[in-house]
Amino acid sequence: MVLETAVTYARSHQAVFLEELCHYLEIPSISTLSHHRADVLRAAEWLQNNLTRIGLEHVQQIETAGNPVVYADWLHAGADAPTILVYGHYDVQPVEPLDAWTSPPFEPVVRDGRLYARGVSDNKAQHFSHLKALEAMLKTAGQLPVNVKICFDGEEEVGSPNLAPFVAANQTLLAADFVVISDGAMHQPDQPTIDYALRGVVAAEIRVTGPNRDLHSGSYGGLVHNPAQAVAEIVAALHHADGRVAIPGFYDDVNTLSPVERDLLQKVPYSFRQWQTETGAPAAWGESAFTFFERMTARPTCEVNGIWGGFAGEGFKTIIPAEAGAKISMRLVENQDAEKIAAQLTRFVEQLAPPTVNVNVMVQAGAAAAVTPYDSVAIQAAFRAYEDGWGATPLLSRGGGSLPIVATFQKLLGTPFVLMPFGLDDNRHSPNEHYHLAHLEKGMVTAVYFYHHLATAVTDKPVEVI
Amino acid sequence: MVLETAVTYARSHQAVFLEELCHYLEIPSISTLSHHRADVLRAAEWLQNNLTRIGLEHVQQIETAGNPVVYADWLHAGADAPTILVYGHYDVQPVEPLDAWTSPPFEPVVRDGRLYARGVSDNKAQHFSHLKALEAMLKTAGQLPVNVKICFDGEEEVGSPNLAPFVAANQTLLAADFVVISDGAMHQPDQPTIDYALRGVVAAEIRVTGPNRDLHSGSYGGLVHNPAQAVAEIVAALHHADGRVAIPGFYDDVNTLSPVERDLLQKVPYSFRQWQTETGAPAAWGESAFTFFERMTARPTCEVNGIWGGFAGEGFKTIIPAEAGAKISMRLVENQDAEKIAAQLTRFVEQLAPPTVNVNVMVQAGAAAAVTPYDSVAIQAAFRAYEDGWGATPLLSRGGGSLPIVATFQKLLGTPFVLMPFGLDDNRHSPNEHYHLAHLEKGMVTAVYFYHHLATAVTDKPVEVI
Repeated sequence: MVLETAVTYARSHQAVFLEELCHYLEIPSISTLSHHRADVLRAAEWLQNNLTRIGLEHVQQIETAGNPVVYADWLHAGADAPTILVYGHYDVQPVEPLDAWTSPPFEPVVRDGRLYARGVSDNKAQHFSHLKALEAMLKTAGQLPVNVKICFDGEEEVGSPNLAPFVAANQTLLAADFVVISDGAMHQPDQPTIDYALRGVVAAEIRVTGPNRDLHSGSYGGLVHNPAQAVAEIVAALHHADGRVAIPGFYDDVNTLSPVERDLLQKVPYSFRQWQTETGAPAAWGESAFTFFERMTARPTCEVNGIWGGFAGEGFKTIIPAEAGAKISMRLVENQDAEKIAAQLTRFVEQLAPPTVNVNVMVQAGAAAAVTPYDSVAIQAAFRAYEDGWGATPLLSRGGGSLPIVATFQKLLGTPFVLMPFGLDDNRHSPNEHYHLAHLEKGMVTAVYFYHHLATAVTDKPVEVI
Repeated sequence: MVLETAVTYARSHQAVFLEELCHYLEIPSISTLSHHRADVLRAAEWLQNNLTRIGLEHVQQIETAGNPVVYADWLHAGADAPTILVYGHYDVQPVEPLDAWTSPPFEPVVRDGRLYARGVSDNKAQHFSHLKALEAMLKTAGQLPVNVKICFDGEEEVGSPNLAPFVAANQTLLAADFVVISDGAMHQPDQPTIDYALRGVVAAEIRVTGPNRDLHSGSYGGLVHNPAQAVAEIVAALHHADGRVAIPGFYDDVNTLSPVERDLLQKVPYSFRQWQTETGAPAAWGESAFTFFERMTARPTCEVNGIWGGFAGEGFKTIIPAEAGAKISMRLVENQDAEKIAAQLTRFVEQLAPPTVNVNVMVQAGAAAAVTPYDSVAIQAAFRAYEDGWGATPLLSRGGGSLPIVATFQKLLGTPFVLMPFGLDDNRHSPNEHYHLAHLEKGMVTAVYFYHHLATAVTDKPVEVI
């Protein structure tokens, strides 16, 4: 059978695929650091070549105001077959702190059944699995069961600032029935998860300046407001003591979770013990009226991603620093408007700012949360694909992270989405990011089943999802 | 006359002295950075050679548990002549932020009548001025008017942790009638200042740890207490909104300033305009019940010298950092006990520490404040030396900075001190540290007069100092 032949191809080519993936991972495509711009472009080039070799058509890099979008398609499945848009991102996170890595982040290496490299789980191995599933079908059957469009982003880790204008300007090119994205994590290796909601994100930087240079604390201590102290005062004021965000209006538009949905989320296994093992943190923190999993996925948050000012080296240096700052990001849930939240943060920090220092707030990126019907045809196909390809029935869930482009696709293309993570936590955004080799094969096979079931699902009886 | 000949020698050798000083300044003797240890030792070696060439005796480096003390003496002025101990320090501050320097910190260069280099004002040029005054007298008269002992420290910028044990173990070697120290700043080029009090200092580091690694804020935001937020909360709690330090007991042992002393300090010119020009800060801050100058010199303070945690690079990185920290220093006034204050800080931070993170406080250095009678023979000699050598009558004042060794000398040797600054603010502890060439010559000449007047002051009528 066509399906089995493609699955066999995918399984039997794992060594070749791993070698290919390693070449892709060797490219340090860090989008947030401008001196890695050439590497980001090399990653786009690598994808373009790979897509061409697989047998996709119209393979091209489409320019944006930032990094190019890599596009390709295969549209010969017929007018009645659904069209699916595959999204992924070829840029990766920075690597600091570098000395915490056991092996260099851009020298992929397998240890204990895991492939270690920056960007392997977030997101190179995951969208690579779709490419190899398409290759398996094209190389064995010479065709695909559905129409496929590929859209690979080079700026996801900086908030995809140029993808919304790109999508708006290319609505016909990108038109599809569904968007599929394999990113993020399932909760357990044997428990796939399909997320029907993602949090939005707004990132901002607060800069506090005071004296015109670092001052000797013996000469000016006591009569100059210290910017490091001032930034601490501002950051400390962002939360109430009980963990709630203190920005006025922050919760105004947040939906109350329905009892039905709270029951649904209760089914996702996430224990205090698991939290403890994963984080190593000494005690629980956050909004005690909500479960851990609700706090993680269905509640908005405000995080300090970084704080700095003055001397942080060995020993001590008795100065009043000239400036200090903090990087803040807020995770949003549905109905919260990113621009409104950004304005609330800005206004609040400006209100907190004392006249004794200068305070600036720069909003850097924003994206709304996204939610999709959890009984769509694509989600049904994904359900069956995990059962056949992964050997486990998935859970319906929410994701705590953000994929700004999902909200953009919904808003501009009106397209429901299906999120099919193949990874685990995998130290994404942390040192020693990795990906289980077993997940590489299972992901490719599951993707083959997904495209197959998507072609037939429209005529099937809907699966029971709750 | 002997005195005039020495002064002429000092004036006519400025070009040679400048070149010598530049060689000394080229040595990056940063004591707080362990990888500069060899440079610190080179600076000691340089001093040893220079002292020998000048004609001092018993020149030696005396080992301590840290950097060596450079010792020398000349004791042929007779039993009736006073003995003066000259203290200075050959170590310097770190240079960060390096990119804020107009010229490299260890490549001394003259621009607009100023010599730019790290450590030039704090403290190399200032103690060098004493050495060249001694050279001027020895090379012209073949003798000194008083007995002189030299004690140059290599750890002043890290709180002189090994000098107290050194002094305790060498009380006979160091025994003297007075200690003279030229460090710190006069307020105006034409207005020398003699400080009769210095603030003490206690430095500490606060470290907050939480999760076992940097976490993805999308996966854990909302259910892990963020160490960067926690350190901000702790730092923000160190002050009340009115600028007073919030550490319980902090002010318990602080003396009320007498009306006489407040009048004395009023004579030191320090205007809001001067504060504004020097600092560039947007508005005044601190304890409003005290004048700027009192806050700067006679009141204890608590400063954040540095704060850090998470990502501070270009762009953004949505993490919850695994750890964060802050460096704190507190300036103390007389009667405040450094160990007691350190314990109060530690206890307060431990009380503030929530169970959701791990908090450690490490006290790094401590020294009491120092105060000396402002009508001593040595202060009288310094008064007349400034009048003759600088051409201006000095003001009696307090200093806001700290020289831990002064308190040590008082405690262990019972020696009154005289502080004769030759520098200005000079960006000490900041980028672009510099020293006015005019002050180099005036400092050397004033030092020649000082040693001369010290020999005769004991028989003179006391000068009116208030």
